[in-house]
Amino acid sequence: MRIEKDFIGSCEIPKDALYGINSLRAKQNFPNSTAFHKEWFKAVGIVKHACYKTYQKYKQAALQKYPEKNLHFMSDEVIEALKCASIDISKGNYFEHFIIPAIQGGAGTSINLNINEIISNLALQKLGKELGEYHFIDPIEHANIYQSTNDVIPTALKVALIFLFKELDVSINRTTQALEKNETNTRNRLRQAYTQMQTAVPSSYDKLFGGYGNALSRDWWRVSKCSERIKEVNLGGGAIGTGIAIPSYFIMEVVSQLQRLTGLPITRSENLSDTTSNLDSLVEVHASLKAHAVNMEKMAADLRLMASDLFKNREILLPQKQVGSSIMPGKVNPVISEYIISSAHKIYANDQLVSSLCAQGCLDLNAYLPTIGHAMIESTKLLITCNRTITDNLLTGLQFKKIPDKASILKNPSLTTALSPYIGYHQATQLADLMNTEHCSISEANTKLQLVDPKTLDHLLKPAQLLKLGYRLNDVIDNKI
Amino acid sequence: MRIEKDFIGSCEIPKDALYGINSLRAKQNFPNSTAFHKEWFKAVGIVKHACYKTYQKYKQAALQKYPEKNLHFMSDEVIEALKCASIDISKGNYFEHFIIPAIQGGAGTSINLNINEIISNLALQKLGKELGEYHFIDPIEHANIYQSTNDVIPTALKVALIFLFKELDVSINRTTQALEKNETNTRNRLRQAYTQMQTAVPSSYDKLFGGYGNALSRDWWRVSKCSERIKEVNLGGGAIGTGIAIPSYFIMEVVSQLQRLTGLPITRSENLSDTTSNLDSLVEVHASLKAHAVNMEKMAADLRLMASDLFKNREILLPQKQVGSSIMPGKVNPVISEYIISSAHKIYANDQLVSSLCAQGCLDLNAYLPTIGHAMIESTKLLITCNRTITDNLLTGLQFKKIPDKASILKNPSLTTALSPYIGYHQATQLADLMNTEHCSISEANTKLQLVDPKTLDHLLKPAQLLKLGYRLNDVIDNKI
Amino acid sequence: MRIEKDFIGSCEIPKDALYGINSLRAKQNFPNSTAFHKEWFKAVGIVKHACYKTYQKYKQAALQKYPEKNLHFMSDEVIEALKCASIDISKGNYFEHFIIPAIQGGAGTSINLNINEIISNLALQKLGKELGEYHFIDPIEHANIYQSTNDVIPTALKVALIFLFKELDVSINRTTQALEKNETNTRNRLRQAYTQMQTAVPSSYDKLFGGYGNALSRDWWRVSKCSERIKEVNLGGGAIGTGIAIPSYFIMEVVSQLQRLTGLPITRSENLSDTTSNLDSLVEVHASLKAHAVNMEKMAADLRLMASDLFKNREILLPQKQVGSSIMPGKVNPVISEYIISSAHKIYANDQLVSSLCAQGCLDLNAYLPTIGHAMIESTKLLITCNRTITDNLLTGLQFKKIPDKASILKNPSLTTALSPYIGYHQATQLADLMNTEHCSISEANTKLQLVDPKTLDHLLKPAQLLKLGYRLNDVIDNKI
Amino acid sequence: MRIEKDFIGSCEIPKDALYGINSLRAKQNFPNSTAFHKEWFKAVGIVKHACYKTYQKYKQAALQKYPEKNLHFMSDEVIEALKCASIDISKGNYFEHFIIPAIQGGAGTSINLNINEIISNLALQKLGKELGEYHFIDPIEHANIYQSTNDVIPTALKVALIFLFKELDVSINRTTQALEKNETNTRNRLRQAYTQMQTAVPSSYDKLFGGYGNALSRDWWRVSKCSERIKEVNLGGGAIGTGIAIPSYFIMEVVSQLQRLTGLPITRSENLSDTTSNLDSLVEVHASLKAHAVNMEKMAADLRLMASDLFKNREILLPQKQVGSSIMPGKVNPVISEYIISSAHKIYANDQLVSSLCAQGCLDLNAYLPTIGHAMIESTKLLITCNRTITDNLLTGLQFKKIPDKASILKNPSLTTALSPYIGYHQATQLADLMNTEHCSISEANTKLQLVDPKTLDHLLKPAQLLKLGYRLNDVIDNKI
Repeated sequence: MRIEKDFIGSCEIPKDALYGINSLRAKQNFPNSTAFHKEWFKAVGIVKHACYKTYQKYKQAALQKYPEKNLHFMSDEVIEALKCASIDISKGNYFEHFIIPAIQGGAGTSINLNINEIISNLALQKLGKELGEYHFIDPIEHANIYQSTNDVIPTALKVALIFLFKELDVSINRTTQALEKNETNTRNRLRQAYTQMQTAVPSSYDKLFGGYGNALSRDWWRVSKCSERIKEVNLGGGAIGTGIAIPSYFIMEVVSQLQRLTGLPITRSENLSDTTSNLDSLVEVHASLKAHAVNMEKMAADLRLMASDLFKNREILLPQKQVGSSIMPGKVNPVISEYIISSAHKIYANDQLVSSLCAQGCLDLNAYLPTIGHAMIESTKLLITCNRTITDNLLTGLQFKKIPDKASILKNPSLTTALSPYIGYHQATQLADLMNTEHCSISEANTKLQLVDPKTLDHLLKPAQLLKLGYRLNDVIDNKI
Repeated sequence: MRIEKDFIGSCEIPKDALYGINSLRAKQNFPNSTAFHKEWFKAVGIVKHACYKTYQKYKQAALQKYPEKNLHFMSDEVIEALKCASIDISKGNYFEHFIIPAIQGGAGTSINLNINEIISNLALQKLGKELGEYHFIDPIEHANIYQSTNDVIPTALKVALIFLFKELDVSINRTTQALEKNETNTRNRLRQAYTQMQTAVPSSYDKLFGGYGNALSRDWWRVSKCSERIKEVNLGGGAIGTGIAIPSYFIMEVVSQLQRLTGLPITRSENLSDTTSNLDSLVEVHASLKAHAVNMEKMAADLRLMASDLFKNREILLPQKQVGSSIMPGKVNPVISEYIISSAHKIYANDQLVSSLCAQGCLDLNAYLPTIGHAMIESTKLLITCNRTITDNLLTGLQFKKIPDKASILKNPSLTTALSPYIGYHQATQLADLMNTEHCSISEANTKLQLVDPKTLDHLLKPAQLLKLGYRLNDVIDNKI
Repeated sequence: MRIEKDFIGSCEIPKDALYGINSLRAKQNFPNSTAFHKEWFKAVGIVKHACYKTYQKYKQAALQKYPEKNLHFMSDEVIEALKCASIDISKGNYFEHFIIPAIQGGAGTSINLNINEIISNLALQKLGKELGEYHFIDPIEHANIYQSTNDVIPTALKVALIFLFKELDVSINRTTQALEKNETNTRNRLRQAYTQMQTAVPSSYDKLFGGYGNALSRDWWRVSKCSERIKEVNLGGGAIGTGIAIPSYFIMEVVSQLQRLTGLPITRSENLSDTTSNLDSLVEVHASLKAHAVNMEKMAADLRLMASDLFKNREILLPQKQVGSSIMPGKVNPVISEYIISSAHKIYANDQLVSSLCAQGCLDLNAYLPTIGHAMIESTKLLITCNRTITDNLLTGLQFKKIPDKASILKNPSLTTALSPYIGYHQATQLADLMNTEHCSISEANTKLQLVDPKTLDHLLKPAQLLKLGYRLNDVIDNKI
Repeated sequence: MRIEKDFIGSCEIPKDALYGINSLRAKQNFPNSTAFHKEWFKAVGIVKHACYKTYQKYKQAALQKYPEKNLHFMSDEVIEALKCASIDISKGNYFEHFIIPAIQGGAGTSINLNINEIISNLALQKLGKELGEYHFIDPIEHANIYQSTNDVIPTALKVALIFLFKELDVSINRTTQALEKNETNTRNRLRQAYTQMQTAVPSSYDKLFGGYGNALSRDWWRVSKCSERIKEVNLGGGAIGTGIAIPSYFIMEVVSQLQRLTGLPITRSENLSDTTSNLDSLVEVHASLKAHAVNMEKMAADLRLMASDLFKNREILLPQKQVGSSIMPGKVNPVISEYIISSAHKIYANDQLVSSLCAQGCLDLNAYLPTIGHAMIESTKLLITCNRTITDNLLTGLQFKKIPDKASILKNPSLTTALSPYIGYHQATQLADLMNTEHCSISEANTKLQLVDPKTLDHLLKPAQLLKLGYRLNDVIDNKI
């Protein structure tokens, strides 16, 4: 055990712990155990790395410009140790010394202080000092140099999110490709369409998969825009975006440094106060995630329905991925669809959380950033898993019954709609009525009523014919019986 | 009373009613009284007008091309009567004959049928027929020609929304201008900043208004993108976007006709099935409205707080707009802020409604379009009113106390942060401690401790100096005591 | 036109308008058009009636006790005129003079003032005065005597809600009865059960309707508790529940008066400050409405699914209630189910609205009562309509196919679960396998494998046998082959 | 590594893993890492323990009754091993072998199978067998005997919740006691009340704390009712509540066994199908948690506001619990309040999640139980932590300024309201006007205007006098000047 002190009193800290008294107090104040996302932890490491590098450059420039002035800076040794420590954090090392839960008070102070304490202690270790010897390297004076919780933590959140959006981007792309394969495989395969769960006019499977593909293309585009919405960061702005007590050299330089380190198109906000106090961009970005979740739920629910035991014209079989029942042998359940729907609803709930808290900003800051950021990372990660599992475990391996169930489509009276341009509404209705009363197919009904030449009928009932957009007048005139 | 019939039975309809049996049945099936938005009603009129004009053009082209074929079309007289009737609807006339509530079952069928019945009866009147003589002009056969609920109603929703977005656009612009005026009026007026409701370093009023202005510029940009997101319509697609039994001439032409009639940049969707079944664009658009509501709530709550009786450094006075209390004389309440916050929360609730229902689409259609559309129009209209009332009744007429309360800012120990680059953290802390124990201003404390030359201190405490972004090293070196 | 003045300035009021300047200002400040619920308007009339009656009694008691003191009270004539006017309001008369929208700023001040103005002007009319002659009868001095917005408006909300809960109570009861009829009609009618949309073991229709009935009995019980949760009112508490400047006689008496007038079990809160500032009871009550909505959505969705064209074992037919399509002839859609699901989602959104605003109370009051109350009344009324329409238009008239589709149930291999206690898992699995490979019924498979005596099998497959809860060991032993 | 097989194929399982192939497949299908709540895991152990004990009793009874029949049961040795293993689970042992994330597909199948696999392997170990030798003890045949996911998992959820509700109950009680202490400490300490953030008539601190205490008493009562709402379990009902293939002896006995093991007042549901398919009770219960969260947010926000730097009449100091800023020295933030508000919003989001998923039940089951249950446990645990931290770190140690700031209350013109019964509205308004224009106290104004005898005024301004509910007529008459 070692003893650490703050202005409130003192605490015992386990001998080997890299965290310190501020972390411990926060842990006691926020006694829940929701796991903090490692992605954010790592991003704080990157941001601090950028700060230390910028500090180093600033020191060099200052000493060079004013060699005669006795300017005071941290020693190169200390700066190097801080840099190494921040690189460790950025790799996710020592995450077990991060003891703050995701749900917490404060706008990220505890996140920042816990990481500052780890960095200080790591740096102390590197310099051969004892843990806790903060008079050499202090979590606030040194590890937090020219930084504020209010610029470091939201900037790190954005870095973490943009990295995750790249993963999401890739995973949506894979889903889109899997959809395209299914679209190709089902080209012109007729399908009974349903509106409001009632039979409608005919459609095809490729139209269905094409529709999902289109929707996911929009999602992909949305996600690509998400990064743009949050690429402006307030790093360098200090507590409230005014950059008070921070060298302007540092402010002008630190974001480019971060850009180089991450390879991300991050820029410094034009209005640091605005970026510090207004979180509407996070609302907008999470809503894009939600729109994607809506498309995923619709698709997952549709496929579950069409492949389910209760579906009348079942032609689709989901790949079997796990035993479905502990009591009914051989039962396989649509668990991938259910996983996606559960995740989607979780994302809707997160969306409410994000916007209700973003609206609760007060004057120069929003105190709820940790909970907001947690929800945003959670939603993004869930969507990545949803795309992965629907691609790997549902869309790949989706099977269609060998012989399409065209018979039931041909027995659907609404099919006569397709003939009305050729034989008129009146005769079409005659056909439909007979199909209804006799439960027979359109061909059988036509054989009785002799309204269309059988060859013409065959032509008109070809999928390509049924599915082309609108009819041309000369077709009608030419085919007219 | 007249009697109308459908396949279920017959109903008595008031003699002069322009609606018919389908409207009446719907009214009985959905016995609530939520008022339908007139904007949507009018937009259906415009869409139907475009359909009738396109029909007319198609008829002319067909007869010209195939003069010898005995092609059957509605008479010019009937077409003209339908057109006139649809123009009436597009002006909002006869809205009292629209008897369907906003919350309803069906994907808009009842909206469509009620308007079809009104149009048919209006057209019958124009031709000197009796109301209800549908064998002349039928609500479905004629008024609904080449249309489906599933293409007309969502297309009309988009038309209504784009018109409203233009109004919203204008109203946000006015708010932005009012904010800019306040920004100009408060240039460099110091303000005690607060983070987490605790005193932080100094800021200024113009930074605050500038921040709101920036946020609203983003909102304005978002709203301008909203129209783009929904400009693709599925008109011509029929029941499920396949355009079955509709002439391709009509499909290719009707959207351009609508574009000309509305002057809006509407286009035909590339994938009509997708547009018919997937409503993710509505989710995205409503979320943009929500982001705007979040900014409005933040701003309204901030101004309420700063102008309230409980605020310590109150320098802002809201314009008095109505008597605040029925029991406490002279009380004036921040009702405009409260109105905006109430509206914002209503919009958050609508956002949940919109996305939860958009996710419940099933196969080829989403049955909940009426409730979704109602919420979207409601949110847009609320935001327009919020912008209007905050501009007219709060931002215009906002008063500032003549003499700024600089004294309390000068007594705030965190002000010493501004001096730390010049005198170092250690001496800055000495100053702060003395200010704390003696409750004195920074100048008084400095007089005692003699850490900074008084002139230099005056310079450093000038607003422009306190608020500039970061310090330059040579400033520090030059000013160093 | 007449001119009215307040401390801000003056306004022109239409000559015959019963409302006055305060109403007009509010209308301009809150420029939306959401219709205020008449039920609340009427309830304010009742509450004010109770206040005037109590005032009258107090005056009589005071004059009787202190006949010699020159106590000042309103004249009996004025009191009578106010009473008459409040009775008018309680009947819903003059609602067209109530010009305040439902979404508004202020904790109900504008509602109160608009009604005070109507009451004053009505009373003036009765006394032969001109409208607006408030020096005779003043909206605040007289119409609002011993009242505050903060006690009258929430009390009236509770009165309105309790009346509506009685209607809801009756309507749920009717639904329960309709469910019981369906339960009786389908006693022991086998049904293929589905879990996760996959076939499970057999169940019956009466179990399904019995389950819905049970759920709705809980709802009924919940609604009956709702009235209890809000029966404590703060009438008499004045602005913040301290009853300042109100005679204690009035405070002690007014709620009993209200109780007598309404016939409702309303009581005075033990802690008027708590009741004025904390709205958790409204959160709790709305959540009960939501639980009911959840049951309604589940039931409506189940019935829609089982009666839909896409359902494999369709045995249920919904009554046809309106034409379903403007393009596909003869299509009938499950609009009643859709109406209920739409309403349910609207109620979920209202639930979010109610609790998010109830949580935003600040110190001694919650400023958002109007929007909260509006949502609560809306949800209650929607649920009443949902119960009415599902009873009248869906549950009554629900049809079952004459001959149950027992064949498909007998072909379901999971049926063999029912035999496992008798022949063991091993042999049951043999049967199931054969049924799977040959797509044959359990009897056909048994004929081949000869595992159970055919008579015993028939006995075991009887609905009553399949559906009884668990098997008894001696049954197994006796029936063992 | 060992190899395990299922009907899909085979997997490699780490040699020492207690989980098996079903767990591994689920982990791959649901690739997120949300931690499952240990409380639920433990409760599944208890429920299975009850099942094994009941099985044992049933075996004994059966063998005793039919000694001559060759009835087949598991050996006593196996039963004992299963019992021991389930006790391990109920203690939370081997939780690291539970590899299923909280967000998952399936109605709990994977939870059940993972625990069945752990139990089987533990039992195998105890009998000296190798892990994976399921032909001795099978995860489904033996560990899951007479159970179904659909009865075990929801029953375990209810057990877990009822245990947590007891903890919540205790923690709310502690909060209530802490509030009562503050109420006692501030008896009759005047406080400026605020409605809509504007000064209102006077109140007192004890009224404020008394109000919070009342609200929390309602919460306590609500939580105590929660256990009642979910005490009915469907254990014994099997897959859909029909108890198919389960001995009636077992069904009748198993819940009493569970009741004895847990000491909780659990009962068997009267309608097992209803309990299996309808989750409205969970909606109701979570809503009670939400109502509690609403009260917590209101209280936390009020205290934060009154203790904040921006509050004018600040008399309250929050205990300092951690360093507030990494950049501004000495800053202490209201992190406990912020923690509570963050948690409350998380609970509102969970409430939406719970009810939206509970409404998505389909026919005989709700597939989303895992996500629903996760949210319910999370909300309950968060509320426990909120009560603990507000009691320990905010309410205990709350400090009041030694000398109350009575001066500003006496300068508030609305104080004259208290005199109006004695001197009439007219003179009271005179006083108020003078106070307004001269910014003087009520006594100073009275000295000038001489409206009340100074002694009487002193009496009337005593806290006890100002705060008593209403005035009595004879007081007025006696005190009349």
